[in-house]
Parts: sequence; structure tokens; C-alpha cells
Amino acid sequence: MLEGMKDDAYYIGFDLGGTKMIAALVDGDGTIVARARGRTPGDEGADAVAAAMAITIQEACAQVGLAPEKVKAIGAAVPGVMDPVRGTVTLTNLNLKDYPLRATLEKALGLPVFMENDVNAGTWAEFQLGVAKGLHHVVGVFVGTGIGGGLILDGKLYRGWKGSAGEVGHVIIQEGGPLCGCGQYGCLEAFSSRNAMAKDAVSAAAAGNLPELIDKTGTDFRKFKSSIFEKGLEKGNPDIIKIVDRSAFHLGVALASVAMLLNPEAFVIGGGFADRLQERYLDLVLRTMREHAMPSVINEVQVLMGSLGDDAVPLGAALLARNA
Amino acid sequence: MLEGMKDDAYYIGFDLGGTKMIAALVDGDGTIVARARGRTPGDEGADAVAAAMAITIQEACAQVGLAPEKVKAIGAAVPGVMDPVRGTVTLTNLNLKDYPLRATLEKALGLPVFMENDVNAGTWAEFQLGVAKGLHHVVGVFVGTGIGGGLILDGKLYRGWKGSAGEVGHVIIQEGGPLCGCGQYGCLEAFSSRNAMAKDAVSAAAAGNLPELIDKTGTDFRKFKSSIFEKGLEKGNPDIIKIVDRSAFHLGVALASVAMLLNPEAFVIGGGFADRLQERYLDLVLRTMREHAMPSVINEVQVLMGSLGDDAVPLGAALLARNA
Repeated sequence: MLEGMKDDAYYIGFDLGGTKMIAALVDGDGTIVARARGRTPGDEGADAVAAAMAITIQEACAQVGLAPEKVKAIGAAVPGVMDPVRGTVTLTNLNLKDYPLRATLEKALGLPVFMENDVNAGTWAEFQLGVAKGLHHVVGVFVGTGIGGGLILDGKLYRGWKGSAGEVGHVIIQEGGPLCGCGQYGCLEAFSSRNAMAKDAVSAAAAGNLPELIDKTGTDFRKFKSSIFEKGLEKGNPDIIKIVDRSAFHLGVALASVAMLLNPEAFVIGGGFADRLQERYLDLVLRTMREHAMPSVINEVQVLMGSLGDDAVPLGAALLARNA
Repeated sequence: MLEGMKDDAYYIGFDLGGTKMIAALVDGDGTIVARARGRTPGDEGADAVAAAMAITIQEACAQVGLAPEKVKAIGAAVPGVMDPVRGTVTLTNLNLKDYPLRATLEKALGLPVFMENDVNAGTWAEFQLGVAKGLHHVVGVFVGTGIGGGLILDGKLYRGWKGSAGEVGHVIIQEGGPLCGCGQYGCLEAFSSRNAMAKDAVSAAAAGNLPELIDKTGTDFRKFKSSIFEKGLEKGNPDIIKIVDRSAFHLGVALASVAMLLNPEAFVIGGGFADRLQERYLDLVLRTMREHAMPSVINEVQVLMGSLGDDAVPLGAALLARNA
């Protein structure tokens, strides 16, 4: 073990994404002392994913010379809805539906595994250690390929009846609006996610309006990554500015609705993508939100950029495993 | 006192509406043993309203011969947002904003007064004694002149940061939609409330399409009461059917959004108005809700008609006063 490490309280916080996975070794104070990354072998089936998770966890421990069996518990954050009793994911884009993920990992590593929705975990971390520390009523909104959410109500993570609460991305803000990945029309995610922005950017590219930005991407939707929007803002490309502002506007409208329903103290905008869109994005979200709800309810509600970046999800998963 | 009454545990549940007020005397088992009604003298100022409330409470007690000072506490349900520390209403359509309502009533009656939002009280009653008894995650939606809501989360009434949580009526379901009483555009209330339906009914009346229904009302918006819609359904008037179905459709869309965000077990549709619109209304709300959210989340969520009718609000106020 590395010098200075106490050996009595380590947790793994695991962020299982659709294409990559991160295992963070977290000490009892909530500090990440090691990180290991891996590719998510989604095409190879659930057993391959679980095996890759176990290897990535072992790598994180090896980095600081900690025997994996010294870890107290593993918090696994997964993009989906968990069944806490069976230890399965009941609703997810990953190829893991109804697979006994918890039992498989517990057997492979000999450690207790706690499963949580990824954005719930990220919101919990921002509430415990990040920008929302000290608040009591917080809604986390993570903008990425899709849009996820997490609810902290009266200082507790609120999961709802069957664990799916917090799906801010699927609040319908415009009946009959654009098609969403969930199959509905007009959800927030269909307006403000990176995928929604990429749809418009592809169209702008096809019209010849992104000359400095698309030399590598052409008009391939899947190649419109975050960096295109970041660069477009830096260069002042008018189409990119419109696309980013449109995302912010619709997000602001959705936050107004959520604020009327839940009366939170603050929203935390998380995820690496929103972070790259600069102050312009956050300012427009805040302004639009204020313009779309009753002044007496909305005027003091804050919109904060998450302070933990990509660490939020694994850190939150580790903290929740510690509490469990 | 009437025979058979125990004298150790009586509460007043008070429903203060914009035009009328009801004082219900409630025993320790949650049974209403007396009711008194009065007119809300909104035009005569806050002192006149408080005085009328005190008289109505005394009348309810007099009906069963109970001395008012034997009442343990008064629960006053008010359409607005409460400041529980100051005992004032901070946001309301009534002429009571920032008026020391609690202190005035406590002084007039010599009894402790507990204040609550009216729909929170109604939702609480349906959860404690009505159709939602035994559930844990319930959203109450009261359809009337406007649309109010109440949240029961993990078995508790959730008020949010400053007490305004639950405003389902002001969730924006269609950006840029019709103007709402709150000043925003496209809120649920602007589509599905009785006022929203009355706007369309006036227009249908002006077009000559409600011949059997408007002999007394003409095209005066303020005269389009609930009975017109009830009668229109009974007579199979095609314009009224469209108007009622449109209200149900938009309410269903809004419930889908709220279900994605809060993952409740059930919605309770309360208020006397929805109750008069028959099964047709509830069925369409349910079907539309199911069609506008992820099947795995929404399929088991119930939509229930409240079972306590106009008693829900005063009863809930009494129960909350007992708990306070």
C-alpha cells in the first residue's frame, strides 16, 4: 500500500457507461485515491461486461497496492432503473436488463455491491461534497447524450415508488414536439441533450454552415461530439450559437416546470458536456427558467454548475455504498 | 353537546375558498360531525374575512352544542403558499397576502391555528382516509377553476424548500401555448382547468353550438359553471364532449411528465368538478397518461378519482392540525 493510506475504510465507486467504465477507489473522507478506466464491451454480452468491471476494479486497487478484499463495499452506478431486492437493472439502454449484476460482481470479487442509478449517484455527490453541499432540496440535471436527473428532497435521495424517480429528461415540454429516444414526442431530452443538438448540427453542416468545424466529421451524426459545440462557441459560429442557445432555452423552460412542482433550492447542472458550454449556457438556462415560472417561487432558486465533473458519478456511488 | 360525542378530541378543518368557506368539526377518528358554510367577503378586506371565519367556526360548534374553546386546534386550508413561521399567506389570489391570519384567528378564538395549502390538505385527507389510503407515493391533482396539486412522498406531505411544492397546474406542457392565470403560457391549468374549458365553451356558445345549454348563461364567461359541462355530456353535445376530452387529454400528458419525474404509485384526481365529468374523463386521462410515458414506468401507475369530494380539504386540514 502507498504510504499514508489508512487501511480501514475504502470503497469502490463504479461508473458504468455505455462505451466506457471508470472504477474510483475512494477513502473514508470521500477522496478519490485511484482511478482505472476500461472499455464497456457492450456487444459481448452481460457476462463480459461484469468481467470487465471486476478487472477494472482490481486495476484501481492495484494502482495503490490495496488488496481488493480490503475494500469495504462497491457502489455500482448504472444508467438505468435498479431493482434493489434482486440486484438487477430493470430498465436500461445497456445489454444488462434483468441480468444478476450484483450477484455476479459479489461472487467475482467477494465484496458487497450496492447498485444505484448513475445520475442519482452524481447528484448525491454534488449534494454531499460538491456545489450543493449544505442545501436540502436539490434537483440534479445531467446533460449528455441524453438527460438524466436526480432528486434530493429534505436531504434524502428520492427514488419514488419503484426507483425510477428523477427522469427530468422525459418531462414533456412541448406536446407533439421532436421525437425522443424514449419513443415519446416533445420530451426535454429531445430538445436539449447533446444528441438533440447534434441533429441540428448535422443539418447545419449539410447546409455548409460549419466549414471550420466539420473537416473530420462530415455529416455523420455519430461524429458530432462535445468538442464541436465547444469549438463552435469559441469561434463564434452563428449556427452553433443558435443550437446551444436553443438547448439552454428549453432546459430553462423545463426547470421552471420542475421548480413549480418541487420547489427546490437549487438545480445542479452536471455532466462533462454542459461544463464545456461556458457561462453563456448557464446564464441562459437561469434567465429562461426565471421567465417561465411565478416570480415569487422562482426568483431565489439557484442554477449551479456541478463542481465535481466526471468524478461526481463514481464518487456518489462510493458514498452511497458507504451509507448502505 | 349531542349525545354520544366524546369531548376530548375535536378539531376544526377550515376550507377558505375564493367565494365560500366551510368549517367542519371533526372528531378524533376523522369523522365530520358538523359543517357550517359562509360567504367569503373577499371585497371587504382581510379583517372581514378573518371575522367571517371565526363566526363560521362558532356556528359549526354550535350545531352540536360544543363550546368552541373545547376544540383542540384549527386547521385552516387556504389557496396559496403559507409562511409557517409568520402564519401568513405569501402567495394567493385572495386578498390576504402577508396578513397575519393565524395570529388574528388565534386571538379571536383562543385556539391554536395551523395553516396549510388547500390542495395539500385535500391530498392528505385522500391519503389518510380516502381512496389513496395505504399507498406511499401519491400525487393529488385537484381540478377546478384552476388546478392545484399536493405531493405525498414516502408517506409524508412534501412542501419543498419554501412551501410551494406541488403546483402541478403550472407545469408547462406546451411552450408558447395558451395564456395561464399565472401569467405564463402553456401551463396545464391553461388547458385543463374549468376556466380553460369555459373559454372554449364561450366560443362554442357564440358559434351557436350549445343551444340546449346556454339559455341562462349567454356568452358570459363567468356564468359557465360545472353544471354546463355535466349537462353537455349527458345530452351528448359534440362541442362539450370535445372540450371535456381535450381537458382530459392534456391532463393525461401532464401526469405522464409528473410520473417520469416522481414515479408515484397513484394520482388522485380531486375536486368536485372532475367528479361530475364521469368515467369518460378518468378513462381518457389514464389512457393518455399511459401513451405519453415509458411503459415500464407508467403501466402500473393508477389514476384514481378522489373519494372524499368536497370534504377532502377541510378533513385534511383537521387531520394536519391534529398532527401538528
